[in-house]
Amino acid sequence: MITAGVVGGSGYLGGELLRLLLGHPEVRVAAVVSTRLPGRRVDSTHPNLRGVTDLTFCREEALPELDVLLLAAPHRETMRILPRLAERAKVVIDLSGDFRLADPAVYERYYGVPHELPDLLGGFVPGYPELFRDALRAADRISVPGCMASAAVLALTPLTEAGLVEPDVEVDARTGSSGSGATAGPQNLHAERSGAMRIFATGGHRHEPEIAALCGVRPRLTATGVEAVRGVQVICRTALTRDVTEAEVRALYQNRYDREPFVRVVAHRRGLYRLPEPKILLGSNFCDVGFALDRDGGRLLAVAALDNLVKGGAGAAVQSMNVRMGLPERSGLGFPGLHPL
Amino acid sequence: MITAGVVGGSGYLGGELLRLLLGHPEVRVAAVVSTRLPGRRVDSTHPNLRGVTDLTFCREEALPELDVLLLAAPHRETMRILPRLAERAKVVIDLSGDFRLADPAVYERYYGVPHELPDLLGGFVPGYPELFRDALRAADRISVPGCMASAAVLALTPLTEAGLVEPDVEVDARTGSSGSGATAGPQNLHAERSGAMRIFATGGHRHEPEIAALCGVRPRLTATGVEAVRGVQVICRTALTRDVTEAEVRALYQNRYDREPFVRVVAHRRGLYRLPEPKILLGSNFCDVGFALDRDGGRLLAVAALDNLVKGGAGAAVQSMNVRMGLPERSGLGFPGLHPL
Amino acid sequence: MITAGVVGGSGYLGGELLRLLLGHPEVRVAAVVSTRLPGRRVDSTHPNLRGVTDLTFCREEALPELDVLLLAAPHRETMRILPRLAERAKVVIDLSGDFRLADPAVYERYYGVPHELPDLLGGFVPGYPELFRDALRAADRISVPGCMASAAVLALTPLTEAGLVEPDVEVDARTGSSGSGATAGPQNLHAERSGAMRIFATGGHRHEPEIAALCGVRPRLTATGVEAVRGVQVICRTALTRDVTEAEVRALYQNRYDREPFVRVVAHRRGLYRLPEPKILLGSNFCDVGFALDRDGGRLLAVAALDNLVKGGAGAAVQSMNVRMGLPERSGLGFPGLHPL
Amino acid sequence: MITAGVVGGSGYLGGELLRLLLGHPEVRVAAVVSTRLPGRRVDSTHPNLRGVTDLTFCREEALPELDVLLLAAPHRETMRILPRLAERAKVVIDLSGDFRLADPAVYERYYGVPHELPDLLGGFVPGYPELFRDALRAADRISVPGCMASAAVLALTPLTEAGLVEPDVEVDARTGSSGSGATAGPQNLHAERSGAMRIFATGGHRHEPEIAALCGVRPRLTATGVEAVRGVQVICRTALTRDVTEAEVRALYQNRYDREPFVRVVAHRRGLYRLPEPKILLGSNFCDVGFALDRDGGRLLAVAALDNLVKGGAGAAVQSMNVRMGLPERSGLGFPGLHPL
Repeated sequence: MITAGVVGGSGYLGGELLRLLLGHPEVRVAAVVSTRLPGRRVDSTHPNLRGVTDLTFCREEALPELDVLLLAAPHRETMRILPRLAERAKVVIDLSGDFRLADPAVYERYYGVPHELPDLLGGFVPGYPELFRDALRAADRISVPGCMASAAVLALTPLTEAGLVEPDVEVDARTGSSGSGATAGPQNLHAERSGAMRIFATGGHRHEPEIAALCGVRPRLTATGVEAVRGVQVICRTALTRDVTEAEVRALYQNRYDREPFVRVVAHRRGLYRLPEPKILLGSNFCDVGFALDRDGGRLLAVAALDNLVKGGAGAAVQSMNVRMGLPERSGLGFPGLHPL
Repeated sequence: MITAGVVGGSGYLGGELLRLLLGHPEVRVAAVVSTRLPGRRVDSTHPNLRGVTDLTFCREEALPELDVLLLAAPHRETMRILPRLAERAKVVIDLSGDFRLADPAVYERYYGVPHELPDLLGGFVPGYPELFRDALRAADRISVPGCMASAAVLALTPLTEAGLVEPDVEVDARTGSSGSGATAGPQNLHAERSGAMRIFATGGHRHEPEIAALCGVRPRLTATGVEAVRGVQVICRTALTRDVTEAEVRALYQNRYDREPFVRVVAHRRGLYRLPEPKILLGSNFCDVGFALDRDGGRLLAVAALDNLVKGGAGAAVQSMNVRMGLPERSGLGFPGLHPL
Repeated sequence: MITAGVVGGSGYLGGELLRLLLGHPEVRVAAVVSTRLPGRRVDSTHPNLRGVTDLTFCREEALPELDVLLLAAPHRETMRILPRLAERAKVVIDLSGDFRLADPAVYERYYGVPHELPDLLGGFVPGYPELFRDALRAADRISVPGCMASAAVLALTPLTEAGLVEPDVEVDARTGSSGSGATAGPQNLHAERSGAMRIFATGGHRHEPEIAALCGVRPRLTATGVEAVRGVQVICRTALTRDVTEAEVRALYQNRYDREPFVRVVAHRRGLYRLPEPKILLGSNFCDVGFALDRDGGRLLAVAALDNLVKGGAGAAVQSMNVRMGLPERSGLGFPGLHPL
Repeated sequence: MITAGVVGGSGYLGGELLRLLLGHPEVRVAAVVSTRLPGRRVDSTHPNLRGVTDLTFCREEALPELDVLLLAAPHRETMRILPRLAERAKVVIDLSGDFRLADPAVYERYYGVPHELPDLLGGFVPGYPELFRDALRAADRISVPGCMASAAVLALTPLTEAGLVEPDVEVDARTGSSGSGATAGPQNLHAERSGAMRIFATGGHRHEPEIAALCGVRPRLTATGVEAVRGVQVICRTALTRDVTEAEVRALYQNRYDREPFVRVVAHRRGLYRLPEPKILLGSNFCDVGFALDRDGGRLLAVAALDNLVKGGAGAAVQSMNVRMGLPERSGLGFPGLHPL
């Protein structure tokens, strides 16, 4: 049994961490920090946890010694609280964007402020078991990637590892409203956000440099908010360095993810759910990846879908924690998703 | 050509007033007041009006002399601004709740503050052409009813006028999110409000005394927010003072609304849209009413549906204005609604 | 380890049974029958089960000897197949409506055909562990109640057991589209069903006699399809046999469901989720129940919400199976639901 | 006053034609043909037209002599019925795909059958007043373009006319469910289609050759069904033949569409609705177009949004009819769309 703590427990990612950790057979949740709601019951903010826990939010000072500390605090704030929190736990897993990028200059360009702990950058292992399982086994600092970056990286990896992808990649992401967090504003007011097809990024998004670093490509990320609360889908459009056959590409994907517990290859010829879509993944830790090859075999669409709060956040954190702590990688992540929903 | 002005033009009701008035063949919109956004273009707040108008919001002081002034300001604030605004126009049409109730004591109970202009209460003609067409022809002060009250009153009137309704009536209302206005808060955050079936009133709602006054019943109003931006549907459950036949009830409804331009009787035996629902009414000024009689003929469901921003607000205001100014009652209100939507 | 089989595995209830049974630590799914799709992979119909199972649908004839057989076949058809299927398993759990009613005459009135196995009626124990836990421990024939009936019965039971409820109860149900099943028709075409507030029953619904039998009341069931795929919410309006206080009612609910693993009392004064709603229950086996008392204490709203495919169907079946087979009642039913969703 | 007739009146495009024509001040609807529902009231299929018309569907044989005949019949069927129907009216406007392509070989490749009237191909003027206003003034045969093609063509035209666009263009379309028509099937079952992000085309879509012919590019069209009933949004990704500035591109769009009644340039720096999206266009005949230029000025996103049943179908037909018949181009098309919705 390991002891875990959560900081930023009143947000959507914090709530999802709690759902997963409270259902995890090998974890005891020792404390949940919320600077906004100390003393309030956790289930007053996360009503799905009624009857599941009697925990209340505590102040940062109340954090006990822990095996694992999971940080779900906002960008920019996380780098400020990390130093004083890091000592509370041997292993720290951060879900913010503050430790995803290795280069302080790139951080400043994309996050708009200088990084306050530049020496720590590069010291975090990215929370992709599919790419860094061995490194994660020994990592005391883990940084969970951005949701759209996760989808794009998992969609492209079988191709980039095979040297098939030309440098310029168009990444088209569609996302639900929960990605913008639990703070109300005009942009996520129900009457405005409902039924939207809102293009909110046309390049320069923070997840771009993550994809660039991990896939060695020049991504152009366009992001559209569509009618959904959870879910991310990406379509990566790329030219190929050589013509390939559909069978060749399928084999690349299948071999790459054959033994991965949470990546499924979805590229079917029949049925309604031929390519990845988030609807059937909500609540699950699966990332579905698929592809469509042009007739001429020279260009390809790589597609991926996931739940931004699970495989795109809290689930990736728990999966990485399982790897780090030597627990079964699927532990606490067994929910398969719902159909229909 | 009459000149009209709108106060509270940046809210949802204000925007809907502008959509209707700008499309009205006999109206010129002379000024639109917004205390929040003076100087900003109207279409920056109401993007559906791009290319339709170049108007900008102005300060209250800039209001010229008008034939008709329409007030879409919040409850409580309206009674404060009315005195200094009323003199700008011969006819004032208020969409707030401040002048819907005749009794200051009832106002204070339901709105939580004493009324500041008790002498004016009762001086406003309710904006129901179906009930007060003659009075509206001469009214210089008109108060547009609440959206759920409008639906319930139009559903019940054919029965109450016939003396068929027992005093206790259960009114069950379902409503979209636009009713809570354009100000963002946790209650209308997309991720929380989406897919909701949220019971937000179980009695004591402000629209109750409106129904009581106009129908002479004791309504118990339950209201639930369901997944929709626009639309109100009410089911009124009532015992009848005597057993009736289905044909008798149908005749009552048809005769009552026979010559009404914006009330349709919808109580069919076949088809998908057998009883009133808002989906096909959005943007239109129709209120559909229907009924279902119990097998034993002793109890009845009276049903109504409307668009809370049109027949439940801005459309009722324009229809009342048409009646008052001697314009064709349908003028500017011709949009029939969309199917499918 | 017990062996289970599912008949009607290609429908929505069948798929949900499979999701739960495949995740159940003490169950082995031995066979899944689909008369429509024999030989096809289960995950081609239920894409959420990709990577979870390699099962294929089989013909009825291929059913092996089983500990438990779960029937998710249509009404009317189930009574035809039961005789030849019943011998395959010691315990049969039926999710259809065919064995919910004790009286053949009532069955014929509500289902439109004479019952073909009248002698078996009344021989099935209703799948409500909250009401029939002891009987279920020994039951070889279990009939899972209707989704709207389950919600209403669990909402009313604390009151009816206390003799507080007057005979006439208005039950207002709101439901998602999955209740109408996986067969496409005009009524569940996306463009027509989307955004609907469709009153599809105004009395005479098949779940009425279930409520009547279990609660000893005369229910009038009105049902409205609202925008949702899953989820049922009911509001039961009732007069009380005597005036009560809010504290009294709360105590009744809390004492009644204190030790129930899947019923939560939700009647809060603050917060967004004050009363039961399905949004946070999807995929879970919880039924949330709550209430609102009139000011005068003489009338009450009893509210309940559940996922029609889980606690309103497949989950109630698994919970009943757990009770019958002496397994931990929560086994396989641990998913708490998602927030936000 | 001109007389118009509609064939295929029971479908979604047929219903939208009727909504627009019945509200058109200069048109009399003389007959509505439905082979499926002759004798049935039009408003039994299109409930939004209750109280608007008493028309009933008739058989083809009952079509009188007309000024304009509008065909909303399916692909492939239209080329069969055209010969016998064409003689009924001087002007024929077809909304199907049968006469959109000039080359019979291309038609056969994309529609899967040989064209039965190859000599007529090329004889229809495309229903784009923005591109073919003069030709439309004299056209007796008009073919309304596909909804996704319309959006892409209007988004790209200012750039292609300026010679700025490299041949390869990626067109990413997102669309609501009404595009798949009024016939129920698994693909548009509410429980499956709701909340979908369903990639249904990855190249080879029928609207591709329309874009190719009108813009002189090689489009690759990817189409995704998202949660909406109405609405199409396209993002066209293209490399530019030379670097340009944002001001240059803006001027190109503004000058091109300056005097167009139904195309608005939407490319704002602030506000929620910075780029085109369908939500605020539903029911209106507007096509909003906008753009986003890469930092380096060498690549561009051209964006467009419209209502697939209006500017993407029935509205374009009525606008073309207005041009052809010398009526004011805006006549009958004044509805601006709703906000919020």
